Amino acid sequence: MSKMTNEQRVQRLRRAMETARLDVLVLRLPENVLLLSGFWPMIGASILVFPLVGKPVCLIPHCYEGEASASLWDVDTVYYRYGILSAPNPGVAVYELLSKIAKGKSWQRIGYEGSFETVAPPWNAAESLVPASQTHALLKRIFVATADLADATPLLEAERSRKTPYEVERLRIASEISNFGLKAFAEAVRVGVSGVELVATVEQEVMVCGTDYKGASRVRAFAQVAVGSEESALGYRPNEVSTTRQLADGDLALLELGVVADGYWADRTRVRVAGTPSNYQRELCEIVRRAQLAGVAAMRPGVTASEVDLAARKVVADAGFSKFFPHITGHGLGFRYHESGPILSPESQEVLEEGMFTSVEPGLYDKTFGGLRFEDDVLVTASGAEALGPFPMDLV
Amino acid sequence: MSKMTNEQRVQRLRRAMETARLDVLVLRLPENVLLLSGFWPMIGASILVFPLVGKPVCLIPHCYEGEASASLWDVDTVYYRYGILSAPNPGVAVYELLSKIAKGKSWQRIGYEGSFETVAPPWNAAESLVPASQTHALLKRIFVATADLADATPLLEAERSRKTPYEVERLRIASEISNFGLKAFAEAVRVGVSGVELVATVEQEVMVCGTDYKGASRVRAFAQVAVGSEESALGYRPNEVSTTRQLADGDLALLELGVVADGYWADRTRVRVAGTPSNYQRELCEIVRRAQLAGVAAMRPGVTASEVDLAARKVVADAGFSKFFPHITGHGLGFRYHESGPILSPESQEVLEEGMFTSVEPGLYDKTFGGLRFEDDVLVTASGAEALGPFPMDLV
Repeated sequence: MSKMTNEQRVQRLRRAMETARLDVLVLRLPENVLLLSGFWPMIGASILVFPLVGKPVCLIPHCYEGEASASLWDVDTVYYRYGILSAPNPGVAVYELLSKIAKGKSWQRIGYEGSFETVAPPWNAAESLVPASQTHALLKRIFVATADLADATPLLEAERSRKTPYEVERLRIASEISNFGLKAFAEAVRVGVSGVELVATVEQEVMVCGTDYKGASRVRAFAQVAVGSEESALGYRPNEVSTTRQLADGDLALLELGVVADGYWADRTRVRVAGTPSNYQRELCEIVRRAQLAGVAAMRPGVTASEVDLAARKVVADAGFSKFFPHITGHGLGFRYHESGPILSPESQEVLEEGMFTSVEPGLYDKTFGGLRFEDDVLVTASGAEALGPFPMDLV
Repeated sequence: MSKMTNEQRVQRLRRAMETARLDVLVLRLPENVLLLSGFWPMIGASILVFPLVGKPVCLIPHCYEGEASASLWDVDTVYYRYGILSAPNPGVAVYELLSKIAKGKSWQRIGYEGSFETVAPPWNAAESLVPASQTHALLKRIFVATADLADATPLLEAERSRKTPYEVERLRIASEISNFGLKAFAEAVRVGVSGVELVATVEQEVMVCGTDYKGASRVRAFAQVAVGSEESALGYRPNEVSTTRQLADGDLALLELGVVADGYWADRTRVRVAGTPSNYQRELCEIVRRAQLAGVAAMRPGVTASEVDLAARKVVADAGFSKFFPHITGHGLGFRYHESGPILSPESQEVLEEGMFTSVEPGLYDKTFGGLRFEDDVLVTASGAEALGPFPMDLV
């Protein structure tokens, strides 16, 4: 990835900090360090100190110097020894380094990540480091004698819901990489294949084809595949259980696919049929496809999130299938698989703005016919909307 | 998995609660819900209320009723509507249900997960739900008028460091499943293959062969492969970056493999050579192998963690390679890829007890020869130690 910087994001965040009267942000979640520094920490032991005035500083375990220096924007760095015998206790090391950075500053309000209850995995997806009481105590010890701690989560979430052009280009790469998985899925669905085999095929393809695609270096897929009408009818759940059950002729397979490329996420869904689809399946597919496109067509700056939801929902209602579409039409994403906003629900009065980015994913579910959903990730542009990484919505 | 229960764990935890004067635990991290209820939540929106006296109750999103009822021990359940249009706000739903459960109880001290800064992913590894300020505020609203909140993290961590026979059998299954990955790695390492291809092959094999192995239903691998001496020399880092670089003749490939099976973890490392290993590589391999076996041989109830570390370290020192072994010999694991204890370090005076479970993973790293590490997961037994899921430590 070229070392472009995201000056627009930095400036916008500083304006938001000014409005919120925050003098500095102290960030530890890899998703937020990425947001404001360009560096996606390998584990959660890097800490970004992002002041309203002056250059940010990032504390980083020494063993990640290569990755950090290759991706950081205009940020000072302090490396500390980590994970080897001669290293100091990480809590002590971070305390001393942060205290040194804080010394002599007249910071009065310190923003921290107090309310992130949903977190994205770092590159080592098997383990997230999150801020809990230790981080809160550390900030108190360093800052509270002279300053206040403020939960900066709402500010960060609001900022993250509007993407800059820099971020859009990275999200586009993630969406394009997700297409390797959608293509592998389309080719692999056939009679006799199981859900876990499809998951493995899709994840393998994304990692092998996605790594080094347009400069992406850290790529990972999280796939879930429900097969047959009983499993796929559960597709309105937040996630599926993939099993060893094998597809029979005419069975549906529903793929829910999360892809992360250097910290930027795509969230896609496709459904395919093993063997020959029935006319009824084709009809259901067409309803969902048209609902998905109607949702995208309704998106532009100035409309409310509910108008988008209702545009997709109307296609389903007109076909007489309302009761089989039990969930919202979409959700924000980008620095996480799901972000806090905007939410495309029937009630949401949130007004869409250029740079907002949501999934659009209507679906139909019933035990008699199974589950069908098509999901793309859609950017609100100046004049309308654009689905990143287009890919066909076909059953076969 | 058969519906055996882990009565020993429940009883032991209740004794620890009594000592800590805790009347109830309110748990939300999937790893802790699993520990005390047998149910590994799909996402982190299930809450287990585990009282000192009386039957535990688990709040669960309605869509996971199937999985929960199949795995929960003797636990009452309350299902709440989640993730669909008619569902209440989850915060409100949980507040009302928890308030109802708390009503009329004389609980004085409420234990919560206040200091878990490292968390295991739930089955949907792309997103963890962790306790932050919202959970803390919820517990305050419900309990603080009449009771105290106490951080139960140290109690839970201490309990988790000693495994029960029930848990050992599940950890054994996870270790055996990890062998599918070690075998696939051994077979796939050859000239021309890349790190990301090896990662994809290993993860695919673990998922496809591991699902349904001895009843395991939710299996996932997280592999990292460093290839060549430059990448593998970085292997003392907490994790690797897998790249598209291809193995040349004589190159090392180092696999770091985390495997989770229904919430129980294995953590393995093997190293192989593409083509023909040099005599020097064989010599290094033999030193690491003997150091690993010496560490395991030193483990038994009553020895200190440092004695185990030093037993492995002595083999390396006697060979004259001390300066190339920069990290600790091992760490606890089980409900996470890495748990807080015990730690096999040169300084640790912790005394090993039957049921403790750690990795044993000496390694040698240098830019001239690369990185070599062998890692198994080892149980302290009544009379010694047992490496679960044995697998050869060979270069070819």
